[in-house]
Amino acid sequence: MTPEGRSGPRRSVPRRSGSGAGPPGSSGPDRSARLASLLAAVEAPAGAAADDVRARLDGLAKPPGSLGRLEDLAVRLAVVRGDPPPSIARPVAFVLAADHGVARRGVSAYPAEVTARMCRAFGSEGAAVNVLGASVGCAVVAVDVGVDADLESVEGIVRRKVRRGTADLAAGPAMSRAEAVSAILVGAEVFGERSPSPDAVVLGEMGIGSSTSAGALTAALTGVDPAKVVGPGTGVRGRPLERKHRVVRRAVERSRSSAGGGGDDPLGVLHEVGGLEIAGLVGVALAAAAAKTPVVVDGFIATAAAAVAVRLAPSSRAYLFAGHRSPEPGHDVLLDDLGLEPVLDLDLRLGEGTGAVLALPILDAAGAILRRMATLESLGLAGGEGP
Amino acid sequence: MTPEGRSGPRRSVPRRSGSGAGPPGSSGPDRSARLASLLAAVEAPAGAAADDVRARLDGLAKPPGSLGRLEDLAVRLAVVRGDPPPSIARPVAFVLAADHGVARRGVSAYPAEVTARMCRAFGSEGAAVNVLGASVGCAVVAVDVGVDADLESVEGIVRRKVRRGTADLAAGPAMSRAEAVSAILVGAEVFGERSPSPDAVVLGEMGIGSSTSAGALTAALTGVDPAKVVGPGTGVRGRPLERKHRVVRRAVERSRSSAGGGGDDPLGVLHEVGGLEIAGLVGVALAAAAAKTPVVVDGFIATAAAAVAVRLAPSSRAYLFAGHRSPEPGHDVLLDDLGLEPVLDLDLRLGEGTGAVLALPILDAAGAILRRMATLESLGLAGGEGP
Repeated sequence: MTPEGRSGPRRSVPRRSGSGAGPPGSSGPDRSARLASLLAAVEAPAGAAADDVRARLDGLAKPPGSLGRLEDLAVRLAVVRGDPPPSIARPVAFVLAADHGVARRGVSAYPAEVTARMCRAFGSEGAAVNVLGASVGCAVVAVDVGVDADLESVEGIVRRKVRRGTADLAAGPAMSRAEAVSAILVGAEVFGERSPSPDAVVLGEMGIGSSTSAGALTAALTGVDPAKVVGPGTGVRGRPLERKHRVVRRAVERSRSSAGGGGDDPLGVLHEVGGLEIAGLVGVALAAAAAKTPVVVDGFIATAAAAVAVRLAPSSRAYLFAGHRSPEPGHDVLLDDLGLEPVLDLDLRLGEGTGAVLALPILDAAGAILRRMATLESLGLAGGEGP
Repeated sequence: MTPEGRSGPRRSVPRRSGSGAGPPGSSGPDRSARLASLLAAVEAPAGAAADDVRARLDGLAKPPGSLGRLEDLAVRLAVVRGDPPPSIARPVAFVLAADHGVARRGVSAYPAEVTARMCRAFGSEGAAVNVLGASVGCAVVAVDVGVDADLESVEGIVRRKVRRGTADLAAGPAMSRAEAVSAILVGAEVFGERSPSPDAVVLGEMGIGSSTSAGALTAALTGVDPAKVVGPGTGVRGRPLERKHRVVRRAVERSRSSAGGGGDDPLGVLHEVGGLEIAGLVGVALAAAAAKTPVVVDGFIATAAAAVAVRLAPSSRAYLFAGHRSPEPGHDVLLDDLGLEPVLDLDLRLGEGTGAVLALPILDAAGAILRRMATLESLGLAGGEGP
């Protein structure tokens, strides 16, 4: 709980206990054991075999492959959920919020206070993700896992602060390894507390400075040049953008020397340059994968969390779907790394889970193909005659 | 009613009367008067001013423009439907089906009989568009406007056959001018018969040979080289694809000499090289525009119909939305011509309205932004401080 960064927040924060699932700041050995058990619970999907699903799709009332990417989604969904996959009836977007000490360096177009303001918007269901979620039938659970403000009085959000924002990742570790694990466990807990269990989850986030952290995380994990993963985020330009480039490069160099290569110690990279909301999303992704539930990642920051999850538990990759292609350059690096192709490309650059939420109706419709389409045989069109 | 093509179908077809709205094959002067009155009813939108909507979007709880293409959709929807636009609660996909005499030249990967088979699939709600429509809450109305088969016994489709398939457009006019008008009026009628009136429509189609007709239509209307608008359709390759190229070029040359330039006489081009389902969709688009209802076009064939509608009644353009980008090369030509940017790009090449249906939840979510998002001011973030 001691921030090590030079300019990071140093206020002491009372530990807040979670629900019955155990407080996030619980003791070290217990925490490590819980993480190990979470990782061990992530197994390969137990649904259909991809080739069988593909063959069945080719027997439906359409030319083979003519439903394009929808067929790919149907196959992946059936691999995870069985063939035919049940309808997505209880999707939940988990929007994790936290502050970043590095925001004080002026790497963002907005002041850190905006994170807390947006938590109020989540609580009153007036933020974009609430509105888009309601429009497509997706519940939104907003979680304060590390906002640098007192949100005790804010209703409608889950309060599970691990610490008040990270330390400045350009100067030292963003958080301790124990804090990173705690934030992961918070994510797993908020998934586990949802009853009935979600049948699809969206990873969303809010945190001024988050794309700086995700940029450093991406470069450190993948080995790609920091210059190729840093972009304008939510709109930073000119000198602040140059600062952001320098900060990410410095953070990556520092974390490489202290955390090793990156791929070898994803948890090391996460605590060195990550964010509390990113760590929390790692936990949501792992818990959902352990429950054999599809995970739809939003843009750059959420996908960075997914990349950490896959390095911690490689089997989690099979549960991941990319909702939306971010204009942020680092997102393509991560999508390539994870082998994901986004459903949508609507030039959204807001985060919060907005793009992934919009992909849900399309993902569900892909599953409906396998549930309800007529076969060529039933139309008297079996054999090479079409349609 | 007399096909003029060399190898087109020559069977005589009993005229089928429609509902009370008047039989499609009604007398010439009456038909022309009805078309004129339909065109006159298409007026500019009476909703919000685009600049006002844009300003209001900039005051919502997000960085300006950060919802990307969703904001563009929100603006266009508000221009048509008012600000805030009401939720899309009663969308209907009109799937018009007809046969093409040119299919006998072997320009398609599938035999013409498939059109009738697919009508049975629409009737039993087992086709892709039925399944995707049900998944996103869009009703499907399938209309036989010219299938070359007896579908009297098929339930669940609207029977309004103008004639049994077109004549061979490579040899002569696909249909008479009067038949083209009749098919347009069928489209307008099936829209008008829907009660309560749809609050968004999707243009979908089925007809073996349709992409040959749409290719000729596109080249003739836009003046673009036929080589640039002809593609594999639903999967034709090799020599049949070469034949398709030759057929389209010949049809365009023929229609240019008989119908004039194209833009001057869109109805002339439509009857020369169009299809009955395309003409029907022109009618759906015009009637929907006259009712100030958004029209979501599907792929290449439906967009060709929209291009005819815009040439007949330029104000109809404001009501058009592009649901999905077709891989067919002619689609980009039409999208440029109409100034439309598709919502989705999922590599679908089936038609039926499948891509446009999937765009509906996103279009509706775009409207929800204007209905429900909190303002920056309400969050204490008015002025330059974000988010």
